[in-house]
Amino acid sequence: MSTRLSARYRVRCPDGSIDARAQSLAIEQSIEMPLDAVRDARVRGEVVGRVQSIEPSRDAPGHFDVVLALAAETVGDEPGQLMNMLFGNCSLQPDVELVDVQLPPPMLESLPGPRFGIDGWRVAVGAAGTQRPLSCTALKPQGLAPDALGELAYAFARAGIDVIKDDHGIADQVAAPFAQRVPVVQAAVERANREKAGADGALAGHRSVYAPSLSGGPRRLGAQLRVARDEGVGALLACPMIVGVPTFVELLRAEAGVPLLAHPALAGHARIAAPLLLGRLFRLFGADATIFPNWGGRFSHPRDDCLAIADAARAPLGAHRPALPVPAGGMSVERVDEMLDDYGADTMLLIGGNLLAAGSEMPARAAEFAARVARAFVPHEP
Amino acid sequence: MSTRLSARYRVRCPDGSIDARAQSLAIEQSIEMPLDAVRDARVRGEVVGRVQSIEPSRDAPGHFDVVLALAAETVGDEPGQLMNMLFGNCSLQPDVELVDVQLPPPMLESLPGPRFGIDGWRVAVGAAGTQRPLSCTALKPQGLAPDALGELAYAFARAGIDVIKDDHGIADQVAAPFAQRVPVVQAAVERANREKAGADGALAGHRSVYAPSLSGGPRRLGAQLRVARDEGVGALLACPMIVGVPTFVELLRAEAGVPLLAHPALAGHARIAAPLLLGRLFRLFGADATIFPNWGGRFSHPRDDCLAIADAARAPLGAHRPALPVPAGGMSVERVDEMLDDYGADTMLLIGGNLLAAGSEMPARAAEFAARVARAFVPHEP
Repeated sequence: MSTRLSARYRVRCPDGSIDARAQSLAIEQSIEMPLDAVRDARVRGEVVGRVQSIEPSRDAPGHFDVVLALAAETVGDEPGQLMNMLFGNCSLQPDVELVDVQLPPPMLESLPGPRFGIDGWRVAVGAAGTQRPLSCTALKPQGLAPDALGELAYAFARAGIDVIKDDHGIADQVAAPFAQRVPVVQAAVERANREKAGADGALAGHRSVYAPSLSGGPRRLGAQLRVARDEGVGALLACPMIVGVPTFVELLRAEAGVPLLAHPALAGHARIAAPLLLGRLFRLFGADATIFPNWGGRFSHPRDDCLAIADAARAPLGAHRPALPVPAGGMSVERVDEMLDDYGADTMLLIGGNLLAAGSEMPARAAEFAARVARAFVPHEP
Repeated sequence: MSTRLSARYRVRCPDGSIDARAQSLAIEQSIEMPLDAVRDARVRGEVVGRVQSIEPSRDAPGHFDVVLALAAETVGDEPGQLMNMLFGNCSLQPDVELVDVQLPPPMLESLPGPRFGIDGWRVAVGAAGTQRPLSCTALKPQGLAPDALGELAYAFARAGIDVIKDDHGIADQVAAPFAQRVPVVQAAVERANREKAGADGALAGHRSVYAPSLSGGPRRLGAQLRVARDEGVGALLACPMIVGVPTFVELLRAEAGVPLLAHPALAGHARIAAPLLLGRLFRLFGADATIFPNWGGRFSHPRDDCLAIADAARAPLGAHRPALPVPAGGMSVERVDEMLDDYGADTMLLIGGNLLAAGSEMPARAAEFAARVARAFVPHEP
């Protein structure tokens, strides 16, 4: 008997033809040829995808939940091939969405998962041993020169923001090439950290971490990783669906050496369920934190979906560490308490534009954000 | 004045709010922060995305065609960053589809485009100087051992099929690891080619080309490229959306040294128009041929879309060579003439399962397919 993974799809289909549609989906996601024409007995028994169950969808009339059992050997040990067998061809069939996946233990173990996880982020920002949530902001807009980005980063770090990431649109453009930007911004953050170390008050000893944005193919990524290592940056940001899942795993997860923050750019959201892709799969591919669009912002994920993404990032999953959910996308300082109520302490809140919109009051707004987050869930003195 | 690219989106939106929606899209795909908060004059003038036009969509009621002018400097010279600025964040907004893109000449020139193009395919299969269409088939099902795949490849090559590719689900799994499969299959194809060289008849001198399927991250891809080079394979297959666009360009386009066949796995189809993604963009990223789902098969692309994909692959595009459109997905030998009528001679027809479904008659069916394609558009003797 072959080891199988199960993949749950939502299929839009008339009642009378769902059996045939499910069977054709099982073929599409495995052998891609008429079953009758498969003469190899081993392939028929152990390789061909099987329909495991078909049920009318509870919350989508006219749709069915179809669970396929796909042979683990068709995936092997390569995460890109996992994406391929789960959703490669049927991404081209608009009646199909990928909703959920259950991997057999050996496959679960073969995926790298987070190297640092939630605890690793707390260590990185000097909050080891605490259970507090983290704050995150973004350097923007793209188009600023390294010095201007460095000044911003300094202000954010002085304000006590935990993680300061490049906006994901800042790549390796002429306005602020990676190799010029990263040393400047990293130095600015380190200067702020040194000043906080010598200061009194709530921020004494606080350490901010800069997460520059990686982009490009293997050569460019390799060069960027060397710059980041040379400069001692404490975290890195990348978009798995743009750099490609295999490169994210094989190059970034393997060689970053610092916590990885995954950005959902190009991850779509209509066809692979966000809790699966941004939560569980990005985590399995090695993301230590995963940014996703929170409800009520610039994106339209419903609240339940957002909470499910956070659950997927943190829930028990073989021996893998939990990843930090990072709700984002048009959030404001006013929503901090509400978001923390919803997501709990194992969360990093990302607020970007709302801090910058304060203009000359930005440092105060950033400090308020950082303080509200850092104080949350800290037991009150009796 | 900054150089701009223009990107056309279809946006689902009530009439009264389309101006604001278009403006927010321009911000989303550029600076991602409130415009008011941008204090840098250069960024405001040269970097922020602009709404160029808004028109009610002619063929989609309740939708608008929104054209944005995005600053070329936000893309720079990196194809992954092009995907990011075109559709990174708004892929997460279900009311938006990316429909078309016009790149400024310097950006068009900076993208690699096909290295071999349509003529290169004809050279590879020994049809240099002809204007004939090409035939292609797939080795399947996944799960077969290298020897069985080699036997199939031999039969296809003897039948006169031009390009014999791995099924895109055949990656580097235990049943037929790349390094074991490729030498066996390549040797089988070469043996058939030698036999044809010494034969009389229509196939005398015909040369079949094997295109193995590449997969994985940079290390694994690098190892596979070395095997392919050592074995002298004549073409290669890859899925740009799985390996990642930057890796496709920087590693495969740059180092393959043979024509590249792009497979649309994971390319979705609902959110980036297929003619743009599978036709123009894959071509710009370096695909010498692009496989897409033909109408009337296992996928549901409408006929006009399919013809538009083929047009995008072949139409004048700066100094770039044309790429070969490869309609596929449940096609049959009976449809060859109809497909060639539609697509013309600069086309490669891909038929897989329909040949294998012939069982013991497969060699005859494959020969009929190859001959019908090879004879098409050849002027009749007077």
